[in-house]
Amino acid sequence: MQPYWATHFMLPGQEHTHAHAVGEALEQARESVAGMVGCDPFEIVFTGGGTEANNLAIRGQLSSAHPQRVQPAGNGHPALSRPPRANSAGNSTANAAGHVLVSELEHDSVIGAASSLQTSGIEMEMIPCQPNGIIDPATVQAILRPNTRLVCLQLANPVLGTLQRVREVADLCHNRGVSVHCDATQAFGKLPVDVSQLRADTVSISGHKFYGPKGSGALYVRRGLHLAPIGYGEPREMGLRPGAENIPAWIGLGAAAYLASRCESEVGDNYSELSDRLINGLRSTLSEEPILLAQHSPRIANTMAIEMPCDAVRIQKAARELVFATAQSSAPPDEMTRSLKAIGRTETQIRRTLRISLGWTTSRDQIDLVVSRIAEACDSVLTR
Amino acid sequence: MQPYWATHFMLPGQEHTHAHAVGEALEQARESVAGMVGCDPFEIVFTGGGTEANNLAIRGQLSSAHPQRVQPAGNGHPALSRPPRANSAGNSTANAAGHVLVSELEHDSVIGAASSLQTSGIEMEMIPCQPNGIIDPATVQAILRPNTRLVCLQLANPVLGTLQRVREVADLCHNRGVSVHCDATQAFGKLPVDVSQLRADTVSISGHKFYGPKGSGALYVRRGLHLAPIGYGEPREMGLRPGAENIPAWIGLGAAAYLASRCESEVGDNYSELSDRLINGLRSTLSEEPILLAQHSPRIANTMAIEMPCDAVRIQKAARELVFATAQSSAPPDEMTRSLKAIGRTETQIRRTLRISLGWTTSRDQIDLVVSRIAEACDSVLTR
Repeated sequence: MQPYWATHFMLPGQEHTHAHAVGEALEQARESVAGMVGCDPFEIVFTGGGTEANNLAIRGQLSSAHPQRVQPAGNGHPALSRPPRANSAGNSTANAAGHVLVSELEHDSVIGAASSLQTSGIEMEMIPCQPNGIIDPATVQAILRPNTRLVCLQLANPVLGTLQRVREVADLCHNRGVSVHCDATQAFGKLPVDVSQLRADTVSISGHKFYGPKGSGALYVRRGLHLAPIGYGEPREMGLRPGAENIPAWIGLGAAAYLASRCESEVGDNYSELSDRLINGLRSTLSEEPILLAQHSPRIANTMAIEMPCDAVRIQKAARELVFATAQSSAPPDEMTRSLKAIGRTETQIRRTLRISLGWTTSRDQIDLVVSRIAEACDSVLTR
Repeated sequence: MQPYWATHFMLPGQEHTHAHAVGEALEQARESVAGMVGCDPFEIVFTGGGTEANNLAIRGQLSSAHPQRVQPAGNGHPALSRPPRANSAGNSTANAAGHVLVSELEHDSVIGAASSLQTSGIEMEMIPCQPNGIIDPATVQAILRPNTRLVCLQLANPVLGTLQRVREVADLCHNRGVSVHCDATQAFGKLPVDVSQLRADTVSISGHKFYGPKGSGALYVRRGLHLAPIGYGEPREMGLRPGAENIPAWIGLGAAAYLASRCESEVGDNYSELSDRLINGLRSTLSEEPILLAQHSPRIANTMAIEMPCDAVRIQKAARELVFATAQSSAPPDEMTRSLKAIGRTETQIRRTLRISLGWTTSRDQIDLVVSRIAEACDSVLTR
């Protein structure tokens, strides 16, 4: 990223050889991101992060407050036509009533963007989750309505690690002419993601979730899907994202995507071994056994919600050198509280839950250290 | 910025000492930005750039599609109450008809955000510009309507350099209970800006316009002004900007603001000397005299639109090592074309206009080189 702050500071749309070189670098970054998700480069729209990608996918499809834009041919992109989908209610009829389904496990930005559509006459309904942390496609099938326009289903849950059956849900939705948005921000860098397998119409990517820079993200937009921008200004990113391109951040996102593509397969095995080591270590050390939630569901192994024998915040205070998450607020519920409630955990159980995640460089020695520190912390809490 | 990519990667809202340290650094950056504009730190909302700041100011005040949010007390900010303004039409009455005035000289993001409100029943009207590149406050006064809710007037024009009479316009608007948004992105780093003098209710800041990082910006929001977020997600930035904080970019913006605060006064004199040298150099070298547009209006001296004796794009092609702007498109008109049309220049005159801007490190030698290169290029174009 460094040269793009200090030396190659021009913007792709400017009229100079240096600017064209920056444009080339940006398109290489776009190819790296497209390579990570298995799509064409022109199906990738860079954003300022995952939250913006989720807002663009949801409000860009359904908010009738936004006039439709024609994609410009600028910035070296092929001119891109995104006609309204056949069978899709689309957003061509202003103020048409509609219905959007959102899984209980979604991120605040997905729930927030979907519920904001209520002022446009679009009703939001939550898809309930099973106690195993998985949304049943049959549940989605059962609550689809004739006027359902969009279903939002994440790929991996950031608290439980559970993997949703996005492809099955996408197929049944498409059979009914309904679009599917998949927030896959938690999955990249942990397992290979291929949008042609996933079959969602839009897929969100967040750079800082897989060692890319903060303030970087992208949205996969299926070729042919009609989307309107949610911000206004000089048209950039195929007309879907106004404002000067954040070149350094997007170059960094491209580099992270390239690295993730190369290591996603192998980190999976490593994560399984290390998470087993962590859980088994805690089980053999603690007097009362901890519970790994959703243990038997398909999961990304690096993301673990573990119910402990005592209060999680007190463990956190007694093991200050460790970084892990606990539920911070029950009203309004934070993401961790919501995900745990969605699988039926009680208030007491939620207060006892730690969320621990592993990274690419986590080692066995570090796992062993974590086990002993948590065990010590539990002891001190239980005997105090 | 470097440590905040690589070492201090936690987010302010996370529960760890390292995260709290990041939060402290972010608040220092906010203080630097507040210092540059002369406001309290809690009146600064960080954004992803100037385009987002303009969208937030305009749509956040007037888009009735957005439910109002209560600012949270998170992230170490003082809890901030922004009750609706007295005398303001506000956005408390959903779908109330309204009227917004936008100067002809505004950036695409201001015009785009304001015109997007038409779907909410708010009519946009352009404020005409005088041939000297200045909006006459009497014109604003004359076209204000009883249902006008917002007036958008930039501080410095990025093509002509002209400075608008924002304070006079703000005073007359406030007397009528109308809010004022000022896009000041082009002014920072070129002259001291003090929001208590400017008196606008919201003021946009763009990092990369004054040596800050791309993808960074901020909006000054006057204490007490009611604003709703334009994106949805985990509430950050006093509830006005969801998504993980772009810590490195905002730290960089803070550093740029600190530098700008220290040198804005002195660069002004330097810019005046260098721009005189450039214009006088061109006048004494070219066979036909170039015209510095809006020369006798209050201006930021570093930003010059110069009408040449021949086609500007041909000069650009003959002087490839120089970086300057020319009008690129008349339909739809780009920013340069719009600004020049607003002051009554003809199509032929617009095609002959170069926009040249000077930076903090521009030297006399560089100016002399630019003069000779442009003169050579003009010669080659005129004699070809």
